[in-house]
Amino acid sequence: MKAEIISIGDEILIGQIINTNAAYIGEKLLTIGIKVKRTTTIGDDEEIIINALQKALYENDIIIVTGGLGPTHDDVTKKAFANFFKCGYKRDEAVYEHVKNLLAKRNIPLKPINEEQAMVPEVCNVLFNALGTAPGMHFIKDGKEIFVMPGVPFEMQYIMENHVLPYLKSKNKFFIKVKTLMTCGIAESSLFNLLGDINELTKNAELAFLPNARGVRIRVMTRSENENDAEYELNRVVNIIYEKANNYIYSDEEKEIEEVVGKLLTENNLTLAIAESCTGGRVADRITDISGSSKYFMRGLVTYSNKSKTDLLGIPDELISEKGAVSKEVASLMAENLRLKSGTDIGISTTGIAGPTGGTPEKPVGLIWIGYSDKYESFAKNFYLGDNRKIFKERASQMALNILREQIIKNFIRKK
Amino acid sequence: MKAEIISIGDEILIGQIINTNAAYIGEKLLTIGIKVKRTTTIGDDEEIIINALQKALYENDIIIVTGGLGPTHDDVTKKAFANFFKCGYKRDEAVYEHVKNLLAKRNIPLKPINEEQAMVPEVCNVLFNALGTAPGMHFIKDGKEIFVMPGVPFEMQYIMENHVLPYLKSKNKFFIKVKTLMTCGIAESSLFNLLGDINELTKNAELAFLPNARGVRIRVMTRSENENDAEYELNRVVNIIYEKANNYIYSDEEKEIEEVVGKLLTENNLTLAIAESCTGGRVADRITDISGSSKYFMRGLVTYSNKSKTDLLGIPDELISEKGAVSKEVASLMAENLRLKSGTDIGISTTGIAGPTGGTPEKPVGLIWIGYSDKYESFAKNFYLGDNRKIFKERASQMALNILREQIIKNFIRKK
Repeated sequence: MKAEIISIGDEILIGQIINTNAAYIGEKLLTIGIKVKRTTTIGDDEEIIINALQKALYENDIIIVTGGLGPTHDDVTKKAFANFFKCGYKRDEAVYEHVKNLLAKRNIPLKPINEEQAMVPEVCNVLFNALGTAPGMHFIKDGKEIFVMPGVPFEMQYIMENHVLPYLKSKNKFFIKVKTLMTCGIAESSLFNLLGDINELTKNAELAFLPNARGVRIRVMTRSENENDAEYELNRVVNIIYEKANNYIYSDEEKEIEEVVGKLLTENNLTLAIAESCTGGRVADRITDISGSSKYFMRGLVTYSNKSKTDLLGIPDELISEKGAVSKEVASLMAENLRLKSGTDIGISTTGIAGPTGGTPEKPVGLIWIGYSDKYESFAKNFYLGDNRKIFKERASQMALNILREQIIKNFIRKK
Repeated sequence: MKAEIISIGDEILIGQIINTNAAYIGEKLLTIGIKVKRTTTIGDDEEIIINALQKALYENDIIIVTGGLGPTHDDVTKKAFANFFKCGYKRDEAVYEHVKNLLAKRNIPLKPINEEQAMVPEVCNVLFNALGTAPGMHFIKDGKEIFVMPGVPFEMQYIMENHVLPYLKSKNKFFIKVKTLMTCGIAESSLFNLLGDINELTKNAELAFLPNARGVRIRVMTRSENENDAEYELNRVVNIIYEKANNYIYSDEEKEIEEVVGKLLTENNLTLAIAESCTGGRVADRITDISGSSKYFMRGLVTYSNKSKTDLLGIPDELISEKGAVSKEVASLMAENLRLKSGTDIGISTTGIAGPTGGTPEKPVGLIWIGYSDKYESFAKNFYLGDNRKIFKERASQMALNILREQIIKNFIRKK
């Protein structure tokens, strides 16, 4: 079954609102085996709405429409549907009572403009909206299903969960299984090559590579009339990918690496301190995005100036002048001294050249040394992460968190 | 001129990625007087891409396509365009050199899959992408303009800003003038009321209020065939807004507050240190997003544990147990001690309850104290910033940077 989403609203077209509704609906439909084939966003215009609806009905089986159901003059979605179905309006008594009660609760007098919200096209079934005044509507045309909902996200979500999804689920015969493998530290093309014969993987599954500054996500999707078959095939493909790319995968549950690392630190009763130069606080910021991070994250230092590296971390002036602030030796000593001074189990550090200026032929913009220290070892590794300052910081924080993840597994889990 | 955006990518349809690109493009096109009439999102499928393109060309003048230009098998956008234009491929030498260099810098060997990124349909003009390996492409068909860009947001934005927008702007016969006033510290509805008679402002101008976690942007836009008229009317409206809301406006050049603050610090030869508890490094991270920040930003401390507040900032244990770590006294002393220990001109601090847990009736989730200290004064101010952890951190960093901005103006500029 193929679906189309039609989002209605001038404010989406001009970028005033980001269309999160379409993402929500696409994701929810997929979990019941319905694939969205197209999302169309159009303005509040009757003729354009009817045209989009005609095209959608011609090509897809299920049409989900959101937006344009408010009480003001610029909302024309309901009128467009009444015209499309060449029908009049009926008053829905349940909606009328509900609107009256909602307004009474907020001490707002009932006006004709509010009463009109209970008027719906005669041929529709009302999808009751407990969270707002605009009801959802369900139409059927030539065996195709059309659902119309308000654009306010939480109202739309209420109607999806209570009406649309249960209804569609009961009509569906396919099962869809999806897993996303989150990788970092490897480029998309290298990952693709590493996986070997792609045809073997995609025989009965769909594979997508989704890159961003944090790494490449691999999405695997299978579909079958038999739930076990879909599950079996998903596991087969996921296992092959794990065999070939295990070292690069940090989550198969769509968790960001700061959450994965937080869980590892918590489960192994480890504490962490972070000393950042070039990442400027980005690593600590990501670590503290996780609720509960105060249990394992003790302190961070942003040692931006050389003096702060000396004052706060005891890095000798001579080492900085001999090797440079961006060096293996400084990165490693930053992590080690930080750990000892903080009394934490682990210290990590960053020092590099975020650019766009400050590079030299030997130490170009994009170079970073990431230091790591625990009771077993202290070391530093270098990477080249490009010359865009913000992307450099994002990539650098990801690499630092990945080294932390690898080392916890190596020194605190495998050694047990 | 009417535009259509075609976003390509299965991952958008299934809701794995929210289509922020469409919002960005819609907003940017509007600033040069082009209105998006439709946004269509479709999957990575050659036939579907060609159909969408045909329909778009039939109805609109400018087509902006994003996504599906990666090097792997699931990206078919380039192939679809070559087929649509019934042309072969050419190798673009500049792109080839660029890809080779990018990979070399990251120590990744050049493979055929990478070389293919320099191959583009013969009939296109290449839009150079300095930030990635997939070039943008410009096609013209029956006088209509088609731009194709990668879906990675920062690469798309680079190509929009450097190629697409300047090109389209040069073809436009209307003069459009736009100014965006960035405000923070005031809610959208209060700002709206503060501006008074909105009809007076919008007589010959369009006004939009764009709220996000950092504040509310007011976008003013005027349009005329006469450039002076457009400029005059823009200035008239902007001046009225400045008169009424001056205290809340931190930029009229679309600069983020960290950039505004960086300029103020540089121009006044001031140095800064930051001590963060609840913001976890977010303030330092934003300060160091600005190139050249190493000139004024000396050090940051993320004093997450109470012990680190004592060790690194000399906050007495007794003060913490008496007043609590989240208190006016601790925030103010954090800023003052930080400044004295660091030897900087200014110290700022944050301490609060980012949630979702840890709140009490007296100190609920969302409470923050922001401390400030310079040679003239040390103090702390509190705010309630809501119970979503990430939004709390974002708002908190914005308020801290805004206090810093206000204080530099008050103590180091006005006193001169």
